[in-house]
Amino acid sequence: MGKIDDYQRERERLNQLVLSKGNLEIKRFFSLDSQVYRPGAIPKKYKEMLGLVASLVLRCDDCIMYHIIKCHEEGVTQEEFNEAMAIALVVGGSITIPHLRRAYDAWDELQRTSR
Amino acid sequence: MGKIDDYQRERERLNQLVLSKGNLEIKRFFSLDSQVYRPGAIPKKYKEMLGLVASLVLRCDDCIMYHIIKCHEEGVTQEEFNEAMAIALVVGGSITIPHLRRAYDAWDELQRTSR
Amino acid sequence: MGKIDDYQRERERLNQLVLSKGNLEIKRFFSLDSQVYRPGAIPKKYKEMLGLVASLVLRCDDCIMYHIIKCHEEGVTQEEFNEAMAIALVVGGSITIPHLRRAYDAWDELQRTSR
Amino acid sequence: MGKIDDYQRERERLNQLVLSKGNLEIKRFFSLDSQVYRPGAIPKKYKEMLGLVASLVLRCDDCIMYHIIKCHEEGVTQEEFNEAMAIALVVGGSITIPHLRRAYDAWDELQRTSR
Amino acid sequence: MGKIDDYQRERERLNQLVLSKGNLEIKRFFSLDSQVYRPGAIPKKYKEMLGLVASLVLRCDDCIMYHIIKCHEEGVTQEEFNEAMAIALVVGGSITIPHLRRAYDAWDELQRTSR
Amino acid sequence: MGKIDDYQRERERLNQLVLSKGNLEIKRFFSLDSQVYRPGAIPKKYKEMLGLVASLVLRCDDCIMYHIIKCHEEGVTQEEFNEAMAIALVVGGSITIPHLRRAYDAWDELQRTSR
Repeated sequence: MGKIDDYQRERERLNQLVLSKGNLEIKRFFSLDSQVYRPGAIPKKYKEMLGLVASLVLRCDDCIMYHIIKCHEEGVTQEEFNEAMAIALVVGGSITIPHLRRAYDAWDELQRTSR
Repeated sequence: MGKIDDYQRERERLNQLVLSKGNLEIKRFFSLDSQVYRPGAIPKKYKEMLGLVASLVLRCDDCIMYHIIKCHEEGVTQEEFNEAMAIALVVGGSITIPHLRRAYDAWDELQRTSR
Repeated sequence: MGKIDDYQRERERLNQLVLSKGNLEIKRFFSLDSQVYRPGAIPKKYKEMLGLVASLVLRCDDCIMYHIIKCHEEGVTQEEFNEAMAIALVVGGSITIPHLRRAYDAWDELQRTSR
Repeated sequence: MGKIDDYQRERERLNQLVLSKGNLEIKRFFSLDSQVYRPGAIPKKYKEMLGLVASLVLRCDDCIMYHIIKCHEEGVTQEEFNEAMAIALVVGGSITIPHLRRAYDAWDELQRTSR
Repeated sequence: MGKIDDYQRERERLNQLVLSKGNLEIKRFFSLDSQVYRPGAIPKKYKEMLGLVASLVLRCDDCIMYHIIKCHEEGVTQEEFNEAMAIALVVGGSITIPHLRRAYDAWDELQRTSR
Repeated sequence: MGKIDDYQRERERLNQLVLSKGNLEIKRFFSLDSQVYRPGAIPKKYKEMLGLVASLVLRCDDCIMYHIIKCHEEGVTQEEFNEAMAIALVVGGSITIPHLRRAYDAWDELQRTSR
């Protein structure tokens, strides 16, 4: 599971570094960043899809990867994934296509390895 | 219903202008833009919330206004609205706050006028 | 000729202010900004279209207005305008539509007032 | 003191609205947003200049206005203002010029009204 | 021809994946994305330059690479390339410089390998 | 000193290429880009911090790396670095976190290798 595993290990290593060196405000931001995705009036699955679409239109590969893994864990289907991607693509335009390609690649890897 | 009515009238006038002057590709894009929000595997309500969060992180007031009206039509609750706004705010940062303020203003206008 | 005249008068007033108060580096930047649109291997008309498309995908209404006026002066046709707008729309996505609408409005004003 | 007063009154009104309607995460973000500009190892004046340059390169007029008022309160000089603006202009490019113009307009209003 | 060949092979592989898994709206977008660059009132060469400048100011390396290859196929000269790059650099600012560097690297590779 | 050395060598190689192939306007821009960071009313150290925060909110890894090296040369302390990063994170939101992580990684490498 090359790319996704590599991503997760590096992400973990660097999060540790930021949290060990960073100040209180940075720690508070990281905490707030996890609070907003907790299940609430909007179910967890849709919150992760909100995070995914926001990440795609802002064109951040690492953020896309993170929310794709979460969407997969929450049982997002291929059809739901396609519909979210189509919205992001139309909103963000062809400039998002390279990120869309890598998103489908990661999604494909997750589906193949979790069978 | 000042701001929202003004927005809708101007939007309608200019859409007519673009569609009367624009070429086939522009018309196709406009058509595609409405197709991706149709109900599917993802319910209409959540598609509009995806559009809203994407618009907020990309900081486009007109796009925010459009999706807020649609979210309101789809029965999005105050709690759901808050949770979507909180995700957008954390993803997009304080640079989105002026747009967040105007989003709450429009949402408030919709709630007061639709009672 | 409301909007375009207002834009040009305000732009002129504020450029004077920036150049009277700003430092040497700011003046050099303003000078460089006019140099790159001078006719060269790429004809002036296409340079203005490059500026227009860049302004649309970056979603800056004032910059769009400026290059639309220049494109109009350079004799850009309706068909050329449409094709440039279609590229910008596809590259930049639906988030550019509010700016596209205002671009067609300004273009329409220029065509009506210059007859 | 037209523009700046109007800006501050509207900002205050809408902040009240967001904080009365918004959820805990939104309130925490607003709190964090004021914490990071408190004096620390970096003096308050330079923190406001960091906020100003970030706002200019991200092209947010309201954010620029906010930090210009704070820079003025902290005693930023014309020369310091020019140097910060020049960095922002070179980093962000000509697409920031319309915001730069309005920044100089606000700065000018602050200087004239505070004499 | 290292970097360009690698880019093209990976792009092709992932486009296949997106088109085999994606829905109708995504396919329509991909189709529209190729339609807007077809020769029309604006010659193909200038359409590719519009795509290139838009990609540079939006800072997307893959999109830059794609349009550089197309510009090279359309016979864009070194002088034309420089002038387009200069406009993009001034519009987008120093934040585009890392992408500009890689653009010149790819352009150089194309010129050396096509002799 | 892997990543930082690699970055500096590649940056140097490509700068040479751009300056040997590019036109006068590109050279003038590069010159202007170094002028704005010269010591003035704002001390060099704070100018580099302005460049760093601008680079983080605009999410450009190469630009972040460049200004981190300069900040380190100017004697920026861990506390100052944290405060600048916290401002950038709050302004730019969670979408900047992958860049923030790599910024802390580069900063850590600089501190370890310069002891």
